[in-house]
Amino acid sequence: MAPLPRLLITMGDVAGVGPEIIARAWPELMTICIPTVVGDPSWLQAGVRTVGSNAQVSVVDAPSETICKPTELRCLRGSTQNLSKVQIGSVSAEAGQAAYDFLCRAIDLTLAHHADGIVTAPLQKEGLHAAGLHFPGHTEILAERTGTREFGMMLYARSPEIPHGLGVLHVTLHMALRDVFRHITTAAVREKIDLLQVMMGRLCDHVPRLAVAALNPHASDGGLFGTEETEILAPAVRGARQAGIDVSGPWPSDTLFVRARKGEFDGVVAMYHDQGHIALKLLTGLVGAVNITVGLPIVRTSVAHGTAYDIAGKGIADHRSLVEAARVAAKLCRR
Amino acid sequence: MAPLPRLLITMGDVAGVGPEIIARAWPELMTICIPTVVGDPSWLQAGVRTVGSNAQVSVVDAPSETICKPTELRCLRGSTQNLSKVQIGSVSAEAGQAAYDFLCRAIDLTLAHHADGIVTAPLQKEGLHAAGLHFPGHTEILAERTGTREFGMMLYARSPEIPHGLGVLHVTLHMALRDVFRHITTAAVREKIDLLQVMMGRLCDHVPRLAVAALNPHASDGGLFGTEETEILAPAVRGARQAGIDVSGPWPSDTLFVRARKGEFDGVVAMYHDQGHIALKLLTGLVGAVNITVGLPIVRTSVAHGTAYDIAGKGIADHRSLVEAARVAAKLCRR
Repeated sequence: MAPLPRLLITMGDVAGVGPEIIARAWPELMTICIPTVVGDPSWLQAGVRTVGSNAQVSVVDAPSETICKPTELRCLRGSTQNLSKVQIGSVSAEAGQAAYDFLCRAIDLTLAHHADGIVTAPLQKEGLHAAGLHFPGHTEILAERTGTREFGMMLYARSPEIPHGLGVLHVTLHMALRDVFRHITTAAVREKIDLLQVMMGRLCDHVPRLAVAALNPHASDGGLFGTEETEILAPAVRGARQAGIDVSGPWPSDTLFVRARKGEFDGVVAMYHDQGHIALKLLTGLVGAVNITVGLPIVRTSVAHGTAYDIAGKGIADHRSLVEAARVAAKLCRR
Repeated sequence: MAPLPRLLITMGDVAGVGPEIIARAWPELMTICIPTVVGDPSWLQAGVRTVGSNAQVSVVDAPSETICKPTELRCLRGSTQNLSKVQIGSVSAEAGQAAYDFLCRAIDLTLAHHADGIVTAPLQKEGLHAAGLHFPGHTEILAERTGTREFGMMLYARSPEIPHGLGVLHVTLHMALRDVFRHITTAAVREKIDLLQVMMGRLCDHVPRLAVAALNPHASDGGLFGTEETEILAPAVRGARQAGIDVSGPWPSDTLFVRARKGEFDGVVAMYHDQGHIALKLLTGLVGAVNITVGLPIVRTSVAHGTAYDIAGKGIADHRSLVEAARVAAKLCRR
């Protein structure tokens, strides 16, 4: 059997649920990978207390190479920020800067082959902004620091509802619905098909079967409700098929996800945020999907939820998305 | 116990799956209502043969007032069109005109209190057009013939996935996504909230709890991704609450439908076709939802699927949506 991959778990914004979900997930993480937390040891110890564990945090100065005990959380100090005044559940520049530092440290270690991949706990965008760091989130920091120009966020759903797994890549994401149209081009759709093909090729045990969702209802019903299907999406699908990719569409998005649930497709290119997310949330519940950055030279997965400030520190946050994110990262490391 | 309601089952386009789903549903329909088919007796008898039943069609000249045998399908001739040359699975002006005639006959009988409500099998828009009838579908014919100006199509989902039932009313429906924006006004959203409140009040055993879906991702995330939430949707919700309606939102649409599945809401106002339909199809599968026309002076429900020309005449069409449509119509008739 291949040795377990060495994964770095970044703590994200320490005022959110990151520390406690890492603490709760730790025993399970040990069965998936050789984990090392990149974060703040004191906040991690607080997370351990929050979930009622008697585990101990030990500070290390390099990523673990060997399995440790489930009661020993190894933590690499990832920032020099003073986090003693950070309030749980509140935005702060200190926590924002630290979350950025944790991630950069993890990226550098992974690029230098001291680790095999990164799993990120959530950060808070407002904290980044308060620290003068104008990134929308993790993904853009990863792209900049690894010098990646073509990248995307893939959501990977696997749950009792969809046991065979489904990858969803969005052509547009965090923008007003009104702004979507000018970003949907044949080139943009084709780029997402190609990225999805590569990533699902690593996650599937067969040649991935991909589908493109239509933008308009009934896939425009032969041109009655819009022209994007024939003018923009169909040419992208044709081009990808000519390049040997198993992709079809554009399909009406309402029936497409039912077909995907039945196992007809392994991956879907979605046109806009809610098109993919309505389906994914129904297929996985609120914590089940895993976020994978595609196009990077390193492996990175993430929980699909936010910092959940409103419940942080209460010991009720669900750690399953983090465990699933580690499982997917481990699978990607081994291929 | 209240007497069973008298429901008219219109056959729709005879070249589609209408005749066979009626034939297959008939024994179950008998337990729900006193059904009378409004259609063409020969095509109905052909539908009976298609599903391998030994039932007989008897021609009646008025809607049934009394229960008949499960092996006797009562059919009221609803059109004078000659349908002998219509090909199964093909568009024709004759079948289009006949589908229109069936519906008009059913409307007139119901308005005159000879029946309590109408359940429609699917028609084919192209057939209507071939007959020179320029209606997009059933709903607009119903509105015109009953003199209704404010109406809407509500989808009602009830399945093992969502046993308590969920009504979804769309502010916009069959149009290009790009055209949605100019139709979303505070008045239009408010009108849909009011219609949903009335209809769900008749279907629920309690005061219905309604929610409005946001147009933009994350409900615009405080204005980062669009302004429609604060400028258009929130005022509609506020106005409806002041009028005593239990409604909230606008909520991010991806998590909204998960909350609705958990039972938090009885009805959702959706902004555009795929927003509601992606969720509904996943919650009910491809045949489960029922289409209810709201705002009419009469009860009308419909299957949520089309004529399915590709499988018509093969005896494999699923009749469950028709049974569920009759069940919902019967419930609406009794209140």
